[in-house]
Amino acid sequence: MSIAFRLDATDGPARAGLLTTPHGAVPMPAFMPVATQASVKALSPQEVRQVGATIVLANTYHLYLRPGVERVAQAGGLHRFMRWDGPLLTDSGGFQAYSLGGLRSITGEGVLFKSYLDGSEHLFTPEAVIAYQEALGADIIMPLDQCAPYGEGHAELEAAVERTYGWAVRSQGARRRADQALFGIVQGGTSERLRREAAQAITSLDFPGYAIGGLSVGESKEDTYRMAELTAVQLPADRPRYLMGVGSPEDLVACVARGIDLFDCALPTRVARNGALFTPQGRVNITNARFREMDVPFQEGCDCYTCQGFSAAYLHHLFKAQELLAYRLATIHNLRFVLRLMEEMRRVILEGRFEAYARAFLSTYRSADQEVRVEQRRRWRPKQARQVEQTGLQE
Amino acid sequence: MSIAFRLDATDGPARAGLLTTPHGAVPMPAFMPVATQASVKALSPQEVRQVGATIVLANTYHLYLRPGVERVAQAGGLHRFMRWDGPLLTDSGGFQAYSLGGLRSITGEGVLFKSYLDGSEHLFTPEAVIAYQEALGADIIMPLDQCAPYGEGHAELEAAVERTYGWAVRSQGARRRADQALFGIVQGGTSERLRREAAQAITSLDFPGYAIGGLSVGESKEDTYRMAELTAVQLPADRPRYLMGVGSPEDLVACVARGIDLFDCALPTRVARNGALFTPQGRVNITNARFREMDVPFQEGCDCYTCQGFSAAYLHHLFKAQELLAYRLATIHNLRFVLRLMEEMRRVILEGRFEAYARAFLSTYRSADQEVRVEQRRRWRPKQARQVEQTGLQE
Repeated sequence: MSIAFRLDATDGPARAGLLTTPHGAVPMPAFMPVATQASVKALSPQEVRQVGATIVLANTYHLYLRPGVERVAQAGGLHRFMRWDGPLLTDSGGFQAYSLGGLRSITGEGVLFKSYLDGSEHLFTPEAVIAYQEALGADIIMPLDQCAPYGEGHAELEAAVERTYGWAVRSQGARRRADQALFGIVQGGTSERLRREAAQAITSLDFPGYAIGGLSVGESKEDTYRMAELTAVQLPADRPRYLMGVGSPEDLVACVARGIDLFDCALPTRVARNGALFTPQGRVNITNARFREMDVPFQEGCDCYTCQGFSAAYLHHLFKAQELLAYRLATIHNLRFVLRLMEEMRRVILEGRFEAYARAFLSTYRSADQEVRVEQRRRWRPKQARQVEQTGLQE
Repeated sequence: MSIAFRLDATDGPARAGLLTTPHGAVPMPAFMPVATQASVKALSPQEVRQVGATIVLANTYHLYLRPGVERVAQAGGLHRFMRWDGPLLTDSGGFQAYSLGGLRSITGEGVLFKSYLDGSEHLFTPEAVIAYQEALGADIIMPLDQCAPYGEGHAELEAAVERTYGWAVRSQGARRRADQALFGIVQGGTSERLRREAAQAITSLDFPGYAIGGLSVGESKEDTYRMAELTAVQLPADRPRYLMGVGSPEDLVACVARGIDLFDCALPTRVARNGALFTPQGRVNITNARFREMDVPFQEGCDCYTCQGFSAAYLHHLFKAQELLAYRLATIHNLRFVLRLMEEMRRVILEGRFEAYARAFLSTYRSADQEVRVEQRRRWRPKQARQVEQTGLQE
């Protein structure tokens, strides 16, 4: 058996659960820090553990290109290569093939793309992507799916949902390892009907866990939340629910409130390296002049290594001086902020106090709305993808 | 009392000693990692401790410009600001004023230079530099000195020695704090006569420790060693001897063999960030293709965190992928290599086996000669400084 999921409590739609994997347990709801290239940027594996991470995500696309999945397999698999002995999830690589500007074509066979490293051409098929992830050896793996760009027409969305279903079937058939769990992915853009149909189709394939893809790619937060909610209710209660690519503090609370168990997002670590640190009131930039003389911790009462050990003024100085330690200390703070949030949400769900907790958090936390929108557009460039299509390279 | 020095043993000219400071003891010979801007680049204070550092150097020039010495004083002093509770030494800032390309003039009054950050003009006088270092609060502080560029004529060298003596006297008179130790600095370029005269003059001022400056600035290794040796024998046996700016592995062994107790150098940490790692055979670059499939530690038997925890292949990958963790793991390895070398040298001196140890090390370790020369030229640009002089800005 690869994984097991136990639902411990519900509090409204919010769920507390426990996911057990060959590399350990994941109390849920849970957030996965992103180790794009087999490293959570700026942190050691011990630090990832210390901030409270129980599961980490790595990107198949990046590892396939460098150092190569066969290289990682020779090294004893991804856990051993990156020295992370806890639960690990790899994505399919599809999202990066679509979003990193190198998409050539999407056909029934798979996704043809150019490497962002050297322009070389590569084809990801559902079968190949399973083989790559079996070589990497994560505890949870994802099937190749088609994530339609935001703003795509209904016919295109529908075609993407159908293709994603066909690829899910092929992915199941391609598996060789029994010690990994393959999740199903529900697409459907912001169409309620397509989300319901996709959920029905994918759940009929009986996966041990389900992911909701194609959100947080440019649509409004209201749409993200609405789609997450209506998809979640279509999913079986006895399986974990993973909302892909979502992870600002307010999104985590809003989506746990809608029945999601698992998240991943590069935002907490990426904005940290730009000096944007989370506080209960929202995020603020440590390079702001008001921190220059703040000889106390950045966030009073925060239990992270950074706030426990250093002053805001020192962190401000490290950023101004572009010292490498700055990026580490900021990353530690933001990840601990998000992971403590997950721990607290689990606790209040178990205690039946989730709604009040979520309301209090969301009424205090000021969303970095505009910034988030810009960030999301950066991640997902539908225009660029369409231009590639118009060149006739698509099927 | 600020510091105390105890000579534990000698083995030929090599010395084992113990320096006691208000922030702890420094077994000698000792190497100081460089925390230019109040951070040993890429490391946390805990990691600096873990690699075996017992004393750290910070740069007054950089801290004066950013965040400012008054800011550090307000924060409770440099120890508290950077959370390093061990012994700490600050340099005078003079070397950076000369070598970072912003030198405007050197007069009897002091050194006029332009900030490398914003071009603003600043004057370092002996008195001001003492005040800055008293604000920073290190255990050991250094007087402003004049380090003549390599290749300078005898008259200029002699003038620099005289000026350095006058400034040393003024520095002693400017002191207000009794809990810091002010060292004397011996200049004199590669002139045997000037080195002897400078040593005699400076030691007549009765400092609690002596530094040898103006070496490793472009001259041959033979000259560096010869000058270190002949200066060291002029210094009182009951005071620590500090060779400034020297610190490649072979230089450390060669200069301990000539009676030096204390060193600082940015080379081990700087080359680490370029992927150049120390081995007993010399330094090699981890980005070399031969490390791609080396699924064992970089240096078999090395007791550093990097070699204990990760494979050479993973470190190779991190460098290729430009992951921030790469710079930290490489820095840890190089510092541990150098600091273990110091620990071993102390042990073999105490055991009377230093000569055989040094001979074995130096016969195995291949010096990165060419690279070192280039590096030294980069650090010290006499031509540039002379051009500034020729503009008539000098006195």
